Amino acid sequence: MAESAVMEAVVKATAAPGAEVREVPVPEFGADDGLVKVKAASICGTDLHIYEWDNWAQNRIKPPLVPGHEFCGHVAKVGKNVTSVKEGDFVSAEMHVACGKCFQCRIGEAHICQNVTILGVDGPGAFAEYVRIPESNIWKIDASIPVDYASLLDPLGNAVHTILAGEIAGRTVAVIGCGPIGLFSIAVARACGSAEVFAIEPNEHRRELAKKMKADYVLNPVTDNVKEFVMEKTDGTGVDVIAEMSGNGKAIKQGFDIVRMGGRVSLLGIPSNAVTLDLANDVIFKGAVVQGINGRLMYKTWFQMNALLKTGKLDLDPVITDRMPLRDFSKGMERLKSGESSKIIVYPGASN
Amino acid sequence: MAESAVMEAVVKATAAPGAEVREVPVPEFGADDGLVKVKAASICGTDLHIYEWDNWAQNRIKPPLVPGHEFCGHVAKVGKNVTSVKEGDFVSAEMHVACGKCFQCRIGEAHICQNVTILGVDGPGAFAEYVRIPESNIWKIDASIPVDYASLLDPLGNAVHTILAGEIAGRTVAVIGCGPIGLFSIAVARACGSAEVFAIEPNEHRRELAKKMKADYVLNPVTDNVKEFVMEKTDGTGVDVIAEMSGNGKAIKQGFDIVRMGGRVSLLGIPSNAVTLDLANDVIFKGAVVQGINGRLMYKTWFQMNALLKTGKLDLDPVITDRMPLRDFSKGMERLKSGESSKIIVYPGASN
Amino acid sequence: MAESAVMEAVVKATAAPGAEVREVPVPEFGADDGLVKVKAASICGTDLHIYEWDNWAQNRIKPPLVPGHEFCGHVAKVGKNVTSVKEGDFVSAEMHVACGKCFQCRIGEAHICQNVTILGVDGPGAFAEYVRIPESNIWKIDASIPVDYASLLDPLGNAVHTILAGEIAGRTVAVIGCGPIGLFSIAVARACGSAEVFAIEPNEHRRELAKKMKADYVLNPVTDNVKEFVMEKTDGTGVDVIAEMSGNGKAIKQGFDIVRMGGRVSLLGIPSNAVTLDLANDVIFKGAVVQGINGRLMYKTWFQMNALLKTGKLDLDPVITDRMPLRDFSKGMERLKSGESSKIIVYPGASN
Amino acid sequence: MAESAVMEAVVKATAAPGAEVREVPVPEFGADDGLVKVKAASICGTDLHIYEWDNWAQNRIKPPLVPGHEFCGHVAKVGKNVTSVKEGDFVSAEMHVACGKCFQCRIGEAHICQNVTILGVDGPGAFAEYVRIPESNIWKIDASIPVDYASLLDPLGNAVHTILAGEIAGRTVAVIGCGPIGLFSIAVARACGSAEVFAIEPNEHRRELAKKMKADYVLNPVTDNVKEFVMEKTDGTGVDVIAEMSGNGKAIKQGFDIVRMGGRVSLLGIPSNAVTLDLANDVIFKGAVVQGINGRLMYKTWFQMNALLKTGKLDLDPVITDRMPLRDFSKGMERLKSGESSKIIVYPGASN
Repeated sequence: MAESAVMEAVVKATAAPGAEVREVPVPEFGADDGLVKVKAASICGTDLHIYEWDNWAQNRIKPPLVPGHEFCGHVAKVGKNVTSVKEGDFVSAEMHVACGKCFQCRIGEAHICQNVTILGVDGPGAFAEYVRIPESNIWKIDASIPVDYASLLDPLGNAVHTILAGEIAGRTVAVIGCGPIGLFSIAVARACGSAEVFAIEPNEHRRELAKKMKADYVLNPVTDNVKEFVMEKTDGTGVDVIAEMSGNGKAIKQGFDIVRMGGRVSLLGIPSNAVTLDLANDVIFKGAVVQGINGRLMYKTWFQMNALLKTGKLDLDPVITDRMPLRDFSKGMERLKSGESSKIIVYPGASN
Repeated sequence: MAESAVMEAVVKATAAPGAEVREVPVPEFGADDGLVKVKAASICGTDLHIYEWDNWAQNRIKPPLVPGHEFCGHVAKVGKNVTSVKEGDFVSAEMHVACGKCFQCRIGEAHICQNVTILGVDGPGAFAEYVRIPESNIWKIDASIPVDYASLLDPLGNAVHTILAGEIAGRTVAVIGCGPIGLFSIAVARACGSAEVFAIEPNEHRRELAKKMKADYVLNPVTDNVKEFVMEKTDGTGVDVIAEMSGNGKAIKQGFDIVRMGGRVSLLGIPSNAVTLDLANDVIFKGAVVQGINGRLMYKTWFQMNALLKTGKLDLDPVITDRMPLRDFSKGMERLKSGESSKIIVYPGASN
Repeated sequence: MAESAVMEAVVKATAAPGAEVREVPVPEFGADDGLVKVKAASICGTDLHIYEWDNWAQNRIKPPLVPGHEFCGHVAKVGKNVTSVKEGDFVSAEMHVACGKCFQCRIGEAHICQNVTILGVDGPGAFAEYVRIPESNIWKIDASIPVDYASLLDPLGNAVHTILAGEIAGRTVAVIGCGPIGLFSIAVARACGSAEVFAIEPNEHRRELAKKMKADYVLNPVTDNVKEFVMEKTDGTGVDVIAEMSGNGKAIKQGFDIVRMGGRVSLLGIPSNAVTLDLANDVIFKGAVVQGINGRLMYKTWFQMNALLKTGKLDLDPVITDRMPLRDFSKGMERLKSGESSKIIVYPGASN
Repeated sequence: MAESAVMEAVVKATAAPGAEVREVPVPEFGADDGLVKVKAASICGTDLHIYEWDNWAQNRIKPPLVPGHEFCGHVAKVGKNVTSVKEGDFVSAEMHVACGKCFQCRIGEAHICQNVTILGVDGPGAFAEYVRIPESNIWKIDASIPVDYASLLDPLGNAVHTILAGEIAGRTVAVIGCGPIGLFSIAVARACGSAEVFAIEPNEHRRELAKKMKADYVLNPVTDNVKEFVMEKTDGTGVDVIAEMSGNGKAIKQGFDIVRMGGRVSLLGIPSNAVTLDLANDVIFKGAVVQGINGRLMYKTWFQMNALLKTGKLDLDPVITDRMPLRDFSKGMERLKSGESSKIIVYPGASN
């Protein structure tokens, strides 16, 4: 790094669709920061929103921006106050930077900080050779964890947060929506002692992946009678836990329809429109619990994830469908849009 | 009782509006039942639905029926297997009779039993001189608790269940809807160490009662800027706990709007129509928890309620607006419709 | 059964060491009971206490008694009120019969009922061709679960209750004492997503079994420096969860010594003497939580266990070291005393 | 402050009994600190240990030291990075300074930080005109809270942490040991909806204070049959929650003896010696939960405490028995030793 003040990065340069890969200055870093040399980064649906410049992106993103919030790498430099990591450490990071001073931060709920900023969304991210991370947010990775897995701890953490947001051992689970986080959720539920896992997904490619993740039952909500099937398999009781990953209004309603009385509905997928619910029958008489799930618990989720990976309880290989150099970022965007990829990992630097 | 095989009772005789007070046979009881001489009973909104024969009632009620599910009295007779209560005991009852055999019953969630029947709705109730209750559902009342309070443990239990369905000590609470259960909720929250209580209610008579129950702030959602007010009083954070007692769609949405990030929304009021929610902003990004609240925990809620009453922590007097003989039941219905009464207590028998 | 009013059974006939296998009348059963034909039963340490007639047995047991509280079989007859099981069903049973009327029973804590009686201890048990069980305590077994596993749900349930008495996913666990319940605990912890499991046991045969159960680390507390080892493997933090299965005072103290600040110590093994603890350093400054674990949650534990078995998450084969006809019960006692057996299953009836 | 580089302070000057009040330099403060002008400070038992130079003090304290860890005051100056408080704010502080980097800190358990340092014990404290506090630990006090109450948030927080470490609404509580934290616990339990509170204390003066705090029953463990009394008042069930504030071995054992099956024992009082417990009968068969309580949750306990005080739910006046200028610190020590005082508040500066 020292020899070269510039680096390769994906840059959202202007308020318009697209992005380019070009040289930008290596980020500066402060006394409380680490500078991390990125080894691998993975692409999230959010990155596609930014790339395509949709409504959400137009309201949130201020170009120029280096996107990317899922990655791993090695610490290249540390600021003078940094004590918990050192040069050469293999790390990832929690990219939600909490303020530390609001009510939520002070009671241990930093994942819903009132003043959160997200690296890769509100500030420079990880689709680059180097990324600056505050010490508090750097996460050291156990040496036994493969690089590719280490690059996707952010979405895996979403799945861990969702599945472990209530009791899971011995409970039936329906994972609704089998994008990467849904697929990870299948693995996490199984690893944490769940009873049968029902995966519900209209896209055939994703259903195939759900089978590879060893969901007990994989259903197509368009052609299968999901409710009848679920009720039969649960002796008419319904499922204990809904992990809603689709953000689709119809799917959400189906989740409420198949959850058992007293069950849990954990919502992570973001609906783009309002959703009309029969609160009387689906929530109140059922005595159901509905949870909004956001980010990852800082840092309980990270410790849980680390333990599950380190003890070999998660096989994530089926989810990683594509690998390519960072410079091919636009190809990655095309693959993502095709509906035939799941997690795409990109590698910055000349060696790739 | 022995001398007379008949008793005074409110009877919903036919599938039509109205009800009559007339003589009916004293109920028979089995080996596992107690027969209770009713001292006082209180009128619930459900009784008005039955009286007016609305859609819900037409679908649920099978006349002839003696309604009434809130009461207290003394045990008159017990079946031969009954050991936990005896003649003369001062008692009330949980009128939700659980099956004891479904999944929910077997894991300690009998309040959401799959096969529940409700005395006073699905079978003969307490608007009568005598009512039959299974031993398991009879609740002995501490002698220090006044008769009128003892007659309304069912709705008070709804309030206790709602308020204590999560942490309450030190937490701000918004009670939305100040019918009897809402008013009770104000008292319960205060008695259990809540921070400030916001009561939100459009009806002026009810707002007056909310003040008498010592809500810290009483707001009219039609004329007050509820959100602005709440945000100012909570330093921009929002309230910790919403106790939704109105069942009104607009009010429910306001509840989601003023709950803090990471807060709890406990829904007890039954909306008659579907409700459209902005799940993304109101639940998911907020990391909120939504709970459907149904009945009373069997019998944890009853023990909690008993302790709060016995130690004098609840002043419920303002809620009891009307008292009358059982024979004036129809007058009670009129008072209830007027919107100027809250809890109406009726007393069966010649002595009243 | 109808043809023969007698059956083979183990009988503790007198207040003295020993027991005999002989014919006794088939048990009578009431309107709320099922009569179960025993297929397999397993031997517990408690049975050895009864056999050897130690102090505990002398104070608790009233001969004559048919012992045995771990078993499975098929329903042979049901009383007239029984609706949830029928002739031919494959079942086991919770042998702790709760009163249903005490405070604990009424708040969903029947496993610590004030008036519990235990079949096989306080009344006739399962070391026999037939055993009477109240309907409420009969547990239907999924057809996919092998007979031998089905015979040991009682001690497996102890392990499930202990391990799931708090968070386990992503947490390190030390199982202290590797008798059958300790060995089961290793399997349950792993199946429910634990981080590394440390098994601590002085008996070599049991340590070998702990390895077969796939404990990550198996330690001999007599010759290994357990604390040093644990601290090294946990980066100086200590283990999250102690599952204490030995009842040995020294072992219990070691558990408190290696649990992390804020960790959980779940005590199931019964010490025969008082234990001296450094509460200041081991509990208070540590902010530790200590739990007494008793029986199985009725019936949450049973549902959890059923799910773990049905989805194939538990391999219990290494724990089953001996199988023999019921008539060889005394040989089973000898094997148990040898310290070289773990779970011994006996099979009643001529076919064995 | 600017005019004078020195201030009045209590100084533990040497490794010997005693302490002196003299002038010392006003503390320096850094970019992330606030300097607080102390308005009132209160004396803790720990300060007496330091004064008398007992074993604990000899091992922990490094003279010279300004002790004092309970106080309130106004912010005099802030470092350049400080944003959450400003000059003139009325504040107190959490004097346990957590490292922010250990496992416990990262999972929201900073109150049991592995590397905690305590201001007033391990570094300069609040028995002085000025005290330096890191911004993260400064706590803004609502203007409605009286100065004297604001000076004792640290021990009040211990009581809040203990009482709210599990469910309290509707639960009976035994407070064992009625020093200041025990007395506060009575008030907190009552304010948070407890059922009857039993206060147990051998010292007559403290029993009088317990009555003034409105404990329902005040017992002398030396002369009263505590167990018989408690069992009678709880229908033979025992108390739900033990708040152990004495640190006395005999008292701790009595706590285990009177707690109900399934009850909670929260230990805060520090025993100076090991305690011998009948774990089989007192913890395991009882299914009891034992908690070590340390400090205050950061900062959940502080928010709870703030709410209870702000809404006027706590009357602490009876606990404040003595008020004196800081310069009379040695007199305060004598009063504390007399056993006839409870909380002693001292006021630094010429105006006192």
